[in-house]
Amino acid sequence: MKAIQITEPRKLEIVEVEKPMLKDSDEVMIKVKAAGICGSDVHIYHGTNPMATYPRIIGHEFTGEVVEVGTSVQNVAIGDKVVVEPILYCGECYACRSGRPNVCEKLEAMGVHVDGGMREFIVVPSAKAHKVSPDLPYEMSVVVEPFTIAAQSTWRGDVKKGETCLIMGAGPIGQAILQYALLKGATCIVSDIDNERLDDAKKLGATHVINPLEVDVVEKARELTGGSGPNVTIDSACTLKTFEQAVEMTSPAGRVVVLGFSVEPSKIAQVHITKKELTIVGSRLQTNKFGEVIGYLNTGALNPEGFVTHKFHFLDAQKAMDLVEDPSIKKNKVIITF
Amino acid sequence: MKAIQITEPRKLEIVEVEKPMLKDSDEVMIKVKAAGICGSDVHIYHGTNPMATYPRIIGHEFTGEVVEVGTSVQNVAIGDKVVVEPILYCGECYACRSGRPNVCEKLEAMGVHVDGGMREFIVVPSAKAHKVSPDLPYEMSVVVEPFTIAAQSTWRGDVKKGETCLIMGAGPIGQAILQYALLKGATCIVSDIDNERLDDAKKLGATHVINPLEVDVVEKARELTGGSGPNVTIDSACTLKTFEQAVEMTSPAGRVVVLGFSVEPSKIAQVHITKKELTIVGSRLQTNKFGEVIGYLNTGALNPEGFVTHKFHFLDAQKAMDLVEDPSIKKNKVIITF
Repeated sequence: MKAIQITEPRKLEIVEVEKPMLKDSDEVMIKVKAAGICGSDVHIYHGTNPMATYPRIIGHEFTGEVVEVGTSVQNVAIGDKVVVEPILYCGECYACRSGRPNVCEKLEAMGVHVDGGMREFIVVPSAKAHKVSPDLPYEMSVVVEPFTIAAQSTWRGDVKKGETCLIMGAGPIGQAILQYALLKGATCIVSDIDNERLDDAKKLGATHVINPLEVDVVEKARELTGGSGPNVTIDSACTLKTFEQAVEMTSPAGRVVVLGFSVEPSKIAQVHITKKELTIVGSRLQTNKFGEVIGYLNTGALNPEGFVTHKFHFLDAQKAMDLVEDPSIKKNKVIITF
Repeated sequence: MKAIQITEPRKLEIVEVEKPMLKDSDEVMIKVKAAGICGSDVHIYHGTNPMATYPRIIGHEFTGEVVEVGTSVQNVAIGDKVVVEPILYCGECYACRSGRPNVCEKLEAMGVHVDGGMREFIVVPSAKAHKVSPDLPYEMSVVVEPFTIAAQSTWRGDVKKGETCLIMGAGPIGQAILQYALLKGATCIVSDIDNERLDDAKKLGATHVINPLEVDVVEKARELTGGSGPNVTIDSACTLKTFEQAVEMTSPAGRVVVLGFSVEPSKIAQVHITKKELTIVGSRLQTNKFGEVIGYLNTGALNPEGFVTHKFHFLDAQKAMDLVEDPSIKKNKVIITF
C-alpha cells in the first residue's frame, strides 16, 4: 500500500509500505478515506516541528471506514465511519494521573512521533476510533480533530457565557475556535492580517474584527471592550508578537490561551500577569473531546460547511502541500483523499 | 497624630497628620499597634512600584485595637484585636463580578494607592477589620497579611496533596508559602541564594533546598523530581531569570505562580507552555483569605514563631528601612510598633 512520507525536511514522497495487520484483539483496521493538512504537518515538512523525527508518515486529522476488528472490540464494527484520536499515552505519569494524558511524559502523537494516517490503511487501538454518523460526509468528519483543538482551547481558557473572547488568527483553527466560543455563549472578536478571512469570521458570528496591519490590535481590543480588554484571548496566530499582545491586552482576572510551539522567546513582563492576576494556559491536542465534538457535529451545533476548501488525491500530495504554502491562494482546510 | 510617609522616592518622614474621624456608620477606628515592612513598601521607598503615588503613608500589613465603632457595626467591638484587609474595590467590574475583587479595575490598596496603616490611628470600613484571638500577640497578628499572600498563591497554583512544589525565594513570603504548601500536603523544595535562609526552610519542613549560586536550579529540580520537574513552582524571588526558569522546569500539566511586578520582560518561549500545557498564573494580594489564615493561626496549623526578627518603634522607621536594605544583616520580617 502507499503512504505520504516526509522522508526528511522539505522532501515529501509517496512511498510503498507494508499493509499493517491486527496484532492485538482490541485493535481495528481502518481504510483511510480523508486526511487534513494541518499547520503542524507543514512544520514537519519544513523541519521546524521540534517533536517530529524523520522519516515520518504524516497525518493526525484523519477519517475512514473500519474494515477489520479484533475479537474483543466493542465500540465499533466493520463498516462504521470513524475518526481517529491520534494520541498514545502511558497512563502512569503525573499528567496522565491528573487527567491530562494529552501532555503525557511519553506522549506519542500519530503523524509526529509515530507514523500517522496519511496512508491507505492504518491499525489503531479500538479506543482511538470514534464512530461518527454515517450521514456525515468524510470531508466533514475529517474536521473533527481540528474542532477538538477548539474544544480544548476554549476549555483551557474557561470561555463562558457573557464574556468577551478575542481570537487571534482566523485560519482553520481560529475559525473552529470562533465557532466553539460562540457555542459557549461568548461575544467574539477576531483578529487577522487577512481581510478575506476576517469576512469569513464575521459570517460565522464574530461581533467585531481587527486587522493588525490597519490598527493597533491592543488599543482596538481595549476600545471594543470599554477599556477592560477581552476576558479571554486565544492566540491561534502563535507569533512571538501575538503572545505578547495577548498578555498585554487581556482583562484583569482574564485568561490567555497559548497554542504555539515557538522555541524563540516572547518578551513577557511579570507586571501584566501579577497586576491583572492573569491565567496563561497552554492548550495542546485534546483530552476526551472527540465525543463532545462528534455530538455537536451530529446535531449541527458546529457547522463544518465551508471548512474544507481544497481536496487532492493522495498521489497529488505534493501539489496539496504546494497549495498550502502558496500565500496567493485563498484557502481554508486542505484535505487529501484516499 | 503621627504617620510614616514616603514623601517622595527615597525620602521617608515622620509627619504630623490629622487624626481621622468616623464618617460612616459602618466604619471603625483602629489604634494601630504594629505594621510590617514588606518588599513592596521598599519598592515604594525606591520609587520602583509602578502603582504607588506620592506622598504616601505606607503600610498594608497592620494590626491594632478597635477604639471606636460606627452605629451599624456588627463584626467587631471596641477592644477587639484586629488585622486589616488592606484593599478597596468597586464590586461592579468584571473581576469583582468574577469573585476576584483583588484585581478590581478600580482597586485601591491601602499603603499603595491610598494612605496605609503606618500611623497611630486609622479609620476603615468594618468589613475590612478581621478579629483575631486576644491571645495572639500583635507581633504575630501582624503576619496575617503576608500569610494571606501565601494562601492566595498556593490557591492560584492549585497546590495539592502528594504533589511536588518548588518555592523560589526563602524570604518572609517564601517561608509563608512554604508553610502553606506543606499544610496542603505538598512535598516542598525551596531555592534561594542565601544558605542561612535555606537552613530556615529546612527547619520549616522543606525536603530539599537548592542554592542557584552553587548548582543549576533547573537541572537540580529535575533531578530531585525523577526528571519530571516540580508540579507547581511558586516564584517569590520575582527576578527576570527565576520566572524563565520556573516556566522551563515545571512539569507537564503543572502550574507556575508569578508574584512579581517587574516591568522588564522575561524571555518566555511558547513551546514550554504549549508542549507541557502549563498554567501560568499571577497571584496578587488575596481574595477572602483573611478568615482562613486567622483560623489556621488560632489553631496553630500555621506557625508565625520566628517570622518577625526585628522590631522598631515608629519614630525609628528610617532605621528600620535602613536595616531592611542592609544585605549584611540576617533578618526575616521587620516590624514597626506604635
